[in-house]
Amino acid sequence: MSVQSRKRVYIQEVCTRDGFQAEARFVATQDKVALINQLSQTGLALIEVSSFTSPKAIPMLADAEDVFLRIERRSGVEYSALVPNVKGCERALAANATMLNLVMSASESHSRANLKMSSEQSLSQFASITDAARGKVKINASVSTVFGCPFEGDVPIDHVLDIVTRLVALGIRHITLSDTTGMANPAQVRHLFDAVLERWPAVTFTAHFHDTRAMGLANVVAALDTGVTHFDASLGGLGGCPFAPGATGNICTEDLVHMLECMGYDTGVNLEALLTAARSLPKIVGHDVPGHLIKAGPSSRRYSLSEASRQ
Amino acid sequence: MSVQSRKRVYIQEVCTRDGFQAEARFVATQDKVALINQLSQTGLALIEVSSFTSPKAIPMLADAEDVFLRIERRSGVEYSALVPNVKGCERALAANATMLNLVMSASESHSRANLKMSSEQSLSQFASITDAARGKVKINASVSTVFGCPFEGDVPIDHVLDIVTRLVALGIRHITLSDTTGMANPAQVRHLFDAVLERWPAVTFTAHFHDTRAMGLANVVAALDTGVTHFDASLGGLGGCPFAPGATGNICTEDLVHMLECMGYDTGVNLEALLTAARSLPKIVGHDVPGHLIKAGPSSRRYSLSEASRQ
Repeated sequence: MSVQSRKRVYIQEVCTRDGFQAEARFVATQDKVALINQLSQTGLALIEVSSFTSPKAIPMLADAEDVFLRIERRSGVEYSALVPNVKGCERALAANATMLNLVMSASESHSRANLKMSSEQSLSQFASITDAARGKVKINASVSTVFGCPFEGDVPIDHVLDIVTRLVALGIRHITLSDTTGMANPAQVRHLFDAVLERWPAVTFTAHFHDTRAMGLANVVAALDTGVTHFDASLGGLGGCPFAPGATGNICTEDLVHMLECMGYDTGVNLEALLTAARSLPKIVGHDVPGHLIKAGPSSRRYSLSEASRQ
Repeated sequence: MSVQSRKRVYIQEVCTRDGFQAEARFVATQDKVALINQLSQTGLALIEVSSFTSPKAIPMLADAEDVFLRIERRSGVEYSALVPNVKGCERALAANATMLNLVMSASESHSRANLKMSSEQSLSQFASITDAARGKVKINASVSTVFGCPFEGDVPIDHVLDIVTRLVALGIRHITLSDTTGMANPAQVRHLFDAVLERWPAVTFTAHFHDTRAMGLANVVAALDTGVTHFDASLGGLGGCPFAPGATGNICTEDLVHMLECMGYDTGVNLEALLTAARSLPKIVGHDVPGHLIKAGPSSRRYSLSEASRQ
């Protein structure tokens, strides 16, 4: 397939935020900065650098300002920050985040358990933040548990569409639909993304999948079929699932890029450079990571017959 | 979705053959028999019980006769045996296998490395075996490395179609296309299965995928789209990849059944019963297994808010 005819998809890296916040051991600021600088060179479209939440709530990301201050910016890469409220927005703006990521949950009980507020209060926060940030920075809104809630179960699609309607009314044009605890299946993914892409063609929708139940890349294939072009992923598959010890979390960036490139998509990402970064992760976090590709190598890897005879 | 409208798919279990043959430690005959008896009750369409290869070549399956003799047969379940030659065919018939699985490779170097013969010699063996077995038992032919060879790389689709043409000419009506070392991607899967299903509508094609590079269930989704209804999988994801230490092997049966049922397909399989069998595997093989669902539970699993607050 020629380069001209390859469809462009955009890879958004959440490892240093979504991944590191779930770690048991604090990742040193200098390791975070070095990793982000390395990732900036790989062709990723966006790096979610850190979160301007209260350091008490997420101690692992207490160095958000420091990290933003010390990283080297590369043009063409968005440096995003999770922002829970107006105070967080001010901190993110001061730190020169190029994009804010506002997070809410589609499920009331998950919202209260995870964000300590109702979905309605989240939307009200979003209104204050978009007012404070308008014209200064890009804004993305992430909606958690749109494919199911670990407490309530099914989340009706009409409820998700209502939330998207209200986000769009706030002027938000970048929206992430998140399968927060890995409950989505490919049929459901097709159904929901078909619905939102048809209704809001001018909005950029990101798919955020977890591989908790092995359906991560299957859900990507389903989302691609609907026309989704933006995907979140975490280097090494870092992230974990808070409810299932030992279960995997976010889909793995290098596994995602590898699949997309094999399928003929243009991710803009240098897979070898990404793999080099991924191989440094176990040392940084102090444990093995769940990604497949750092163990198996890309499918283009060739073996000699003498290697076969040693098996 | 009502039961009437759900599309039927067939799950074929290869754990006790493809999985156990890759184990470092011999799995006791009584454990094999007990596991197969347990799996027979779950609604699986087929169990590949063992292999009638030379015990010297695959010592882990040296007890094939014993296992076949001691298992309890359940009507509606095929009890299949891998058969490498006419001698293996005679052993399988004597053991009352209900289906023979003949294996060849689409790639010449993989064929020589793995089967110690050329693809042409395999086809000649197939002719002898089908002659010996005609009218006595069902016959399936598995073609390895159709999505790529770890030694040679790309395997041209025309070459695969030529092999299928010759298998059909031998009277074979059940054909498995195998991604032996996990090189297939969903675009390629669609392309190949579209081609074979269009050309041979009367042949039952099985998709045999490995999750070596995290694309296992993504490839299943692609195959489903083309109309494939038969899938091989291995309980717990057992199998391994001989060339990549630590890499995962076959797609995991319980993860596959879970995804298909979530998508609205009728697998005929009782997921809870399958999970019970999968949870017994680590003790039987003496190590952890790569399946996701035995760690995370099905997506229907619900948590209480008190569990969330403990996280």
